[in-house]
Amino acid sequence: MSFPHKHLIDLSEYSADDISLILDVAERFREVNERRIKKVPTLKGFTVVNMFNEPSTRTRSSFEIAEKRLSCDTLNFGGSSTSTVKGESLLDTVRTLCSYKIDLIVVRDKHAGVPHQVARASGVHVIDAGDGKHQHPTQALLDLYTIRKRFGSIEGLTVGIVGDIGHSRVCGSLIPALKTMGAKVVVVGPPTLMPARPDLLGADEVRFSLDEALPQLDVVYMLRIQRERLEGAPFPSLREYNRLFGLTREREHLLRPDAIVCHPGPINRGVELDDYMADHVERSAILDQVYAGVLVRMASLYLLLGGNEHGADA
Amino acid sequence: MSFPHKHLIDLSEYSADDISLILDVAERFREVNERRIKKVPTLKGFTVVNMFNEPSTRTRSSFEIAEKRLSCDTLNFGGSSTSTVKGESLLDTVRTLCSYKIDLIVVRDKHAGVPHQVARASGVHVIDAGDGKHQHPTQALLDLYTIRKRFGSIEGLTVGIVGDIGHSRVCGSLIPALKTMGAKVVVVGPPTLMPARPDLLGADEVRFSLDEALPQLDVVYMLRIQRERLEGAPFPSLREYNRLFGLTREREHLLRPDAIVCHPGPINRGVELDDYMADHVERSAILDQVYAGVLVRMASLYLLLGGNEHGADA
Amino acid sequence: MSFPHKHLIDLSEYSADDISLILDVAERFREVNERRIKKVPTLKGFTVVNMFNEPSTRTRSSFEIAEKRLSCDTLNFGGSSTSTVKGESLLDTVRTLCSYKIDLIVVRDKHAGVPHQVARASGVHVIDAGDGKHQHPTQALLDLYTIRKRFGSIEGLTVGIVGDIGHSRVCGSLIPALKTMGAKVVVVGPPTLMPARPDLLGADEVRFSLDEALPQLDVVYMLRIQRERLEGAPFPSLREYNRLFGLTREREHLLRPDAIVCHPGPINRGVELDDYMADHVERSAILDQVYAGVLVRMASLYLLLGGNEHGADA
Repeated sequence: MSFPHKHLIDLSEYSADDISLILDVAERFREVNERRIKKVPTLKGFTVVNMFNEPSTRTRSSFEIAEKRLSCDTLNFGGSSTSTVKGESLLDTVRTLCSYKIDLIVVRDKHAGVPHQVARASGVHVIDAGDGKHQHPTQALLDLYTIRKRFGSIEGLTVGIVGDIGHSRVCGSLIPALKTMGAKVVVVGPPTLMPARPDLLGADEVRFSLDEALPQLDVVYMLRIQRERLEGAPFPSLREYNRLFGLTREREHLLRPDAIVCHPGPINRGVELDDYMADHVERSAILDQVYAGVLVRMASLYLLLGGNEHGADA
Repeated sequence: MSFPHKHLIDLSEYSADDISLILDVAERFREVNERRIKKVPTLKGFTVVNMFNEPSTRTRSSFEIAEKRLSCDTLNFGGSSTSTVKGESLLDTVRTLCSYKIDLIVVRDKHAGVPHQVARASGVHVIDAGDGKHQHPTQALLDLYTIRKRFGSIEGLTVGIVGDIGHSRVCGSLIPALKTMGAKVVVVGPPTLMPARPDLLGADEVRFSLDEALPQLDVVYMLRIQRERLEGAPFPSLREYNRLFGLTREREHLLRPDAIVCHPGPINRGVELDDYMADHVERSAILDQVYAGVLVRMASLYLLLGGNEHGADA
Repeated sequence: MSFPHKHLIDLSEYSADDISLILDVAERFREVNERRIKKVPTLKGFTVVNMFNEPSTRTRSSFEIAEKRLSCDTLNFGGSSTSTVKGESLLDTVRTLCSYKIDLIVVRDKHAGVPHQVARASGVHVIDAGDGKHQHPTQALLDLYTIRKRFGSIEGLTVGIVGDIGHSRVCGSLIPALKTMGAKVVVVGPPTLMPARPDLLGADEVRFSLDEALPQLDVVYMLRIQRERLEGAPFPSLREYNRLFGLTREREHLLRPDAIVCHPGPINRGVELDDYMADHVERSAILDQVYAGVLVRMASLYLLLGGNEHGADA
C-alpha cells in the first residue's frame, strides 16, 4: 500500500487510516532508535532541504536527526544566510532548490500559507514544520503518537488544550487531527487569549476556567505562554496567569488518576507549569513527546518518499 | 588520463581540452543525479572545507550538495563563526585547516586574490567559489555546460553579456573561458557600468545599446543589477535601467529564433529581466544553469581529487 | 579492557594509564588519518551533539572532523540558534536533546561547571570542550600527545606555561595532566596576569621572568594573550608584553637545543610569539598540536562510546 499523500501540510486532509499508518510506521522506527546503531540506509541518496525561515531549535534538530537516521543527505537553508537578503523572491529560491534535484523540502516560516506556496512552486514533497499561527502537523502527529502510546487508543479520550489558544500554531493541526481520531477536544483559557470566534476552532467545548475543565480530561495539553504576548495585554501578569491557568501541584487533586500532561516545549517553568507537574514521573509525557517527534518525522519522511507500512524493515 | 591541474582558480590557464573534460565528466554525473539514489561513494573519506568568508546561498548550497552526492565529508567554515574575529590571520587559519588533513578548500571571499593566497598557504587543492570582482570559475563552467547542452557546441556562437560589466565577478572567468572554447563575446551595458578600460576585458566587442546588440546574439547573458550600485551613480534609476537594458517581452522581436537567456541568479525581476523572459519555457536556461552548477561542481571536485574521464562509473 | 570513564570533563580524575590509553588509541587513529580514505565505520549510527554555547572555530571544527571520520551522525547546536533565547533553561534543553536518543554531548560554555551540570542532567556521555576559565581536557590531551610524540615520553620533562596564567582555561586541565604523566611544570608570567593564589595551580614553580625560566624548559608552552585583557590592566601595552614575555628570535639563545614551542592557537603574532618562533621548522609544534586535536578527539569519542585499546582496527 503506497501512501496517498504527496505533502504533509494540512492534516485535516488526512484520514484516520492515513494518520494511523504514520503512527504505526513511527512505532516500527522506535525499534531502530533503540538499537545501538540507530540508522537505516532507507533514504540514502535522497536530498532533503530544511528551509527554516525563522529560528527553531527543537523542530529543526528533530528533523535533522530523523533525516540522518534515515541516511538522507540534508541541506540546512535559511535564516540570515539565504539570498532573500538579496531580494530574491521565495518562489525563485524554491525553484532554485528544486533545480538541484532535491526530493523534499521541510519548511518553517512565520507567514501562514508559505508551505502551500512552496508545494505549488516546487513539484517536490513538502512537510510543513510550522507556519505562522496556522499549522504544525508533525507536532500534532507526535502528540497523537504520545497519547496513543499511553492510552492504547485515542478514540473516546477527552483532551484539554490549555492556554494561549488564539496564537497557537499547535491548535491548527492538533484539534482537527484529534477529532479525526475520535477524541473529544476542550479548549481552555482566558477570554483575552481566545480567538474572536472560538467556535471555528473545531473544538467540542470552550472553557474559561481550568479548575472546572480539569476533572474531565484524560490529557491536559498545556500550551507555552509567550511572555511578550502578555505584555500590554489586558491580562494582568505572569503570576496572575499562573494562579488561574497554570498546572500546579495545588491542582493535582483535580486531575483524573491516569491523566497525563503534555506540552509542546520549550516550557516556561513557573508560568504554565510548575516544576512538580513538568517533571512528574508518571503524569508528564513531555519528554516522550520529544522522542515521538523523531519517530513521527522519520515515518513522515519515509512514507512521503515512497515507503510503505513495513517501515523499519527496510 | 589524469587531470593536469591542482586548483580551479584561474580558468584562463585551462585549455579547451581541460574545459571539455570537465563538461564531459559533468555530463556523466548528470546520469547520477537523475537516478532515484543520487549518490556515489567516489569521494568517501575525503574532507572538503567550504570556507565562505562572505554570505552565499546558491553557490554554497550547490557545492554542499555536490560534495554530499560524492560522499565527501564536508566542513562548513566561515562567516561570523571563524576565529578571524580573534584576529588570526587568514593564512594561519588555512594552515590550521590543513593540519586536519583535509583534501580540498572551496573558498569564497570578497577580496580578489584570496584563493591564490589560500592555495599557496595550504598545499591542498583549492576551488575559487568567487573572489571579489575577480573570478568565479565554477559559474563560468556551469554557463559553458548549459550553452553546450543547448547548442551542442560552443564554438562559433555569439554570446552577449549584458549589464554591470564593471562590477561582475562572472565576467572575469566567463569571458576568457568563452574565448578558449571558440565563442565570440560581446559585452553590453551603459558606459557608467563599464570598466575604465573595457578593451582589457578580452571581449570581441563592446556595445552601449542592447537593442543594437541583440540581433546577433545566440546567448543573451543578463547580469544581476545590484540596486546599491545604482544608488548615487550617474545612472538615473532602476526603471530607467530596465527601459534601456532590461530584457523584456517588448524586446523579444529582436532576438534570434533560437537565442537563449542566461542569468547567474538571483534574478532582480523587473530590473534586468521581466517575468516573461525569466520564465520563458523555451528561451530561459536559468534553471538549467542551476542544475548544471551541481554537475560541474561534482566534476571539478572529482577531477581535482584524482578522478579521470570515466567520472560517474566509479 | 573497557574504558573506565563515562565522561571527559575533569582530567584530574584520569590516571596515567587512562591518559596513556587515549594517547595510544590516538596514535592508532593517526594511521587512519594518513590513508587516502580517512574514515572508519566505527561509530556509524551513533549521534553526537556539538553544543557550543560560545563561538569556537578550531575546537568545533576539530570535533566535527573527528566525528565524521568515525562515521557518527552529528548535530551542531548552539549559539544564537538555540531556544535559550526563548528562556528555556539549559537543563531542559539537555533533557530534550537526550530524548532524541543521542549518545554523547560535546559542550563548550563560557560558564565554568556547565559540563558537569550537563552530565548530571543528561545521562549520556559528555566531553567538555572548554568551560570558562575552568577546564579544556581535549586541549590538554592533544598537548600531551604532541609532547610525547616529540620526546617519546612525558615523564621527567620540564614544561613551562607562559603568559596569562590567571585567565587560561588551558592551565586548568594541562597542569594536573602533566603532573599525572610525571612532568615538572613551571608557570611563567607577569604578576598582574597570575591568579591571586598561584600556589593552588598545582605547578612546581612560579616564575615572573621568562628569561630566567627558559633555560630549564623542554617545552615552552606560550598562551594566547587576549588584547582586551590587557586594556585597562596595570600591564602597560602589547609591545611591553612582547618585550618581556614574548618568545622571540632574540630569546632563542636561551632555549635548550631540543626545546619545542607549543601554543593552543590562534596565535597573536607579534605579541606572545614572533613569526620566527611561530614558524620555526624544528622547534614549533603548533601545527602538530592541531593535527593531534583530531586524533585525541577521535580517540576520546571512540573510548567513551565503548571502544577498546585496539582503536583503529575497527
